[in-house]
Amino acid sequence: MKMAELSTVSGIAVATIKFYLRERLLPAGARTGPNQATYGEAHLRRLGLVRALLGVGGLSVADARNVIDAIDDPEVSLLHTFDAAQRAVSDDIDPASISAAGFARIDVITAGWHVSPLNPGRLAAARVVDAFEAVGHTDARGWFARYAAAALMVAEADLDEVEALPDVDAQAETVVVGTVLGDALFSGIRRAAQEHVSALRYGSPSSGAPTPTPPGD
Amino acid sequence: MKMAELSTVSGIAVATIKFYLRERLLPAGARTGPNQATYGEAHLRRLGLVRALLGVGGLSVADARNVIDAIDDPEVSLLHTFDAAQRAVSDDIDPASISAAGFARIDVITAGWHVSPLNPGRLAAARVVDAFEAVGHTDARGWFARYAAAALMVAEADLDEVEALPDVDAQAETVVVGTVLGDALFSGIRRAAQEHVSALRYGSPSSGAPTPTPPGD
Repeated sequence: MKMAELSTVSGIAVATIKFYLRERLLPAGARTGPNQATYGEAHLRRLGLVRALLGVGGLSVADARNVIDAIDDPEVSLLHTFDAAQRAVSDDIDPASISAAGFARIDVITAGWHVSPLNPGRLAAARVVDAFEAVGHTDARGWFARYAAAALMVAEADLDEVEALPDVDAQAETVVVGTVLGDALFSGIRRAAQEHVSALRYGSPSSGAPTPTPPGD
Repeated sequence: MKMAELSTVSGIAVATIKFYLRERLLPAGARTGPNQATYGEAHLRRLGLVRALLGVGGLSVADARNVIDAIDDPEVSLLHTFDAAQRAVSDDIDPASISAAGFARIDVITAGWHVSPLNPGRLAAARVVDAFEAVGHTDARGWFARYAAAALMVAEADLDEVEALPDVDAQAETVVVGTVLGDALFSGIRRAAQEHVSALRYGSPSSGAPTPTPPGD
């Protein structure tokens, strides 16, 4: 299809598509003339991915390009794609800014796991543990261990989903989408779960919301 | 203690403390003279909380003030404090921007839960499901259901931690800290878990990190 049609089908403005092409977020179409190119299903799917990464995912153009480069590079293994996606969505944290106690607390919770010392998640989690400690939660090991058990369930679910896919391209895309959008999905469901568990324990739905759901059956 | 001492003990500059006072993030000290006030342990703890909310938590000053007001208002129940904390960390999402199919998919995953239609987490999760759908994950019910099971574990852990605390002030603070910092803690541990599960399945730690941990025992 021509660019005008790609725009109509995807619902993305031609100017935006041209911007994605310039920024190498979308591969060039097949040339059909000096000023014309044609685009296929792969471009349509890629447009959806780019929109998800920049929109709900909140990535910068540079971060989105990094993960897309990882998807497209046939030399890059799935493990590297995971790594690229993790780095794109993680703050750049200086390990020196984290206390030894913070690292020790995270390492106790994830004891037995194979985690690189500079895994961006390990740094982020240790920094949060330092912040919890600063507000008086100095003995929260049991609490955080339950986070670790839940995180393991989510990681298993992510990898099962990736492995069920037929081809490497789809797997790489899912690694990126799952990593980038999975945080937002989890934190959303977590807030719903907080309201649910509160309602179960205290007998009333969170009353700040305008139209509470009746308890029902 | 005087402000200079509060600054020394907390490690927070006097100018920053004065800013927090002006912004009503920190309650005024007890007046001891026309230009002097004295501060206590409660101020020290509150300083740690403010720093955590504005720093690792990433809240704006206005959002931090909203949750602190909820903590300090004796009329506000724990459920309302949860609600205030959730709103402070959630994007303001227009329900009209989400497809009916997105809502339906989230409602299937959280079937039986007591969740208000406008729970900010429900809106956020439905928006993410729409984004997954746009990149071809139209039948991810089994995948997302495992997120829901994990989120329920985390919500139970959060409420157990709150209920174990001796007084209402500490409970309200923990509701806020857990809600605001819990997302960052979970996403960090999740990335560590992804590396771990990948290593278990594919036999090698993520090789993008400079100093991989040897497999060990």
